[in-house]
Amino acid sequence: MTLQEAMQAVEAKMYEVVNSDVGVLRDASRHILEAGGKRIRPRLLLLAYAANGGQKFDEAVPVAAAVELVHTASVVHDDINDHGVVRRGRPSVNAIWGRTFALLTGDYLFTKVYELMAPYRDLNVVLAEATVALVEGETLQASAVKENNFSRQVYYDIIARKTAALFRSAGRLGARLANAPDEVVEALGQYGFNIGLAFQIIDDVLDIIADSEKLGKTAGVDIAQGRGFAVAYAANGQPGGVAVVEETFDDPIVAIRSKVMRGGAIDEAYQQAEAFSQMAVESLRPLPDSPAKDALIEMAYTMVKRER
Amino acid sequence: MTLQEAMQAVEAKMYEVVNSDVGVLRDASRHILEAGGKRIRPRLLLLAYAANGGQKFDEAVPVAAAVELVHTASVVHDDINDHGVVRRGRPSVNAIWGRTFALLTGDYLFTKVYELMAPYRDLNVVLAEATVALVEGETLQASAVKENNFSRQVYYDIIARKTAALFRSAGRLGARLANAPDEVVEALGQYGFNIGLAFQIIDDVLDIIADSEKLGKTAGVDIAQGRGFAVAYAANGQPGGVAVVEETFDDPIVAIRSKVMRGGAIDEAYQQAEAFSQMAVESLRPLPDSPAKDALIEMAYTMVKRER
Repeated sequence: MTLQEAMQAVEAKMYEVVNSDVGVLRDASRHILEAGGKRIRPRLLLLAYAANGGQKFDEAVPVAAAVELVHTASVVHDDINDHGVVRRGRPSVNAIWGRTFALLTGDYLFTKVYELMAPYRDLNVVLAEATVALVEGETLQASAVKENNFSRQVYYDIIARKTAALFRSAGRLGARLANAPDEVVEALGQYGFNIGLAFQIIDDVLDIIADSEKLGKTAGVDIAQGRGFAVAYAANGQPGGVAVVEETFDDPIVAIRSKVMRGGAIDEAYQQAEAFSQMAVESLRPLPDSPAKDALIEMAYTMVKRER
Repeated sequence: MTLQEAMQAVEAKMYEVVNSDVGVLRDASRHILEAGGKRIRPRLLLLAYAANGGQKFDEAVPVAAAVELVHTASVVHDDINDHGVVRRGRPSVNAIWGRTFALLTGDYLFTKVYELMAPYRDLNVVLAEATVALVEGETLQASAVKENNFSRQVYYDIIARKTAALFRSAGRLGARLANAPDEVVEALGQYGFNIGLAFQIIDDVLDIIADSEKLGKTAGVDIAQGRGFAVAYAANGQPGGVAVVEETFDDPIVAIRSKVMRGGAIDEAYQQAEAFSQMAVESLRPLPDSPAKDALIEMAYTMVKRER
């Protein structure tokens, strides 16, 4: 089984496990799955597995599917809280089925992860902890917005939990499935954690500079909701931050965007993301050379270069 | 450790596991836990354990806590979808912290169950399946209301999943923890399933005939939302059902209640609940006599007699 075949098997597995006889849950789950997504987390897991000599991709596929389903569940619930109507270029579950069914679909996806992973014991502990961290990160974000105390420190705490923890678990799980020694499991965890931070920072930048069509989701949401990298940057009093908007625009998001583009937030975001990406590559040092290791190095750089 | 001490240990365990450093999650989780509740599910699990000769309650406590946390998570999410403002005699999480944090608190409780149970492998499969069923049952209910196709068959399918499946898992888990043979595990599962059905039918009756203060939650919600036993009863064209309201009342809930009270729905509900309760008691036949078995028998009858 090649990596590409394994990724197709991950898709098939996710599709298969959401085969509820309750129509709404099946249809809404498959709607969000069929919309695709970058599938970075399962790919990271499979590469971490292969880079440690893992040769039976089919053994890693259910775990890779579970990791992506955790992310998918969180996305469905995010779109409720953020009133997101477009996701992956399609209407969100929330937009089509409404809030009640979106809430239940997210719950369903979380419970299917739990069911899918139930037989794995030790691996299960790794994913369960990451899932708790993800929910904590989302909550920290909502709290920081509400209490208006976004700072760089709070921002990094948020993205470490809401994004990097799951990336970290993907790296660790892949290495564990290949029976890698503990220090290598942790190295792959560090790799995942750092590319997760880079990924989220660039995600926040794209929310500001890209348009919704290209992103496949509503752009400008973070600034509109008072969160994200630029808001944290501005909160710490850097020049060119978003805290003070001098010019007048009809659309407040356009105003903030204009300000940010002229300031240093975007540049600093790229610098930070590049630094995390570089640290991720360095974590791979204990691994022997292999095509999978090369693919992980390439993946780390892609985090920064991506445009959607 | 006595049963009572074990139940206190379940409370302590639940309180302990929701010790997040994210203030909202910790506070909202503890708010709903401190409000109490009947704690039938963990009690059922511990009695099933003891009735099969289990003597180390402390080994069963984390699993009992996990089962109650599944229920607690679902209650927090239910109150979002139902706009419930009172729960267990206190303001709901939704009412105090708002929808976004209630959603995240429910997610948090679900993920903590997952974390708590992660090391258990086989037992974990039992609880994961019940958790999936619970979400499916809630979804079937919302779908039936939306599509206005409530019937007795749909009603029983709903309560089997949303309530009885978790009761069933509690019975099975208790027996499994005591290393009971498979047929006894299934007998305790049947016991739990049947008292779960009885419990839910009486819950629906109390929603109609009790007042909110006594219930500790908003009464009349089921009929107002077009669901529950009486609605299913009426949908099948029984005399005295709720489908046709002849008299005029200012409050539609008072009108339906009046109609139901004069009809046969309440009587039939009690008959059904008693029948399930009796079937539950009969499932206990393989067990030797013991104080725990007596307590399970008593619990089955209590399902029907309870007033809140």
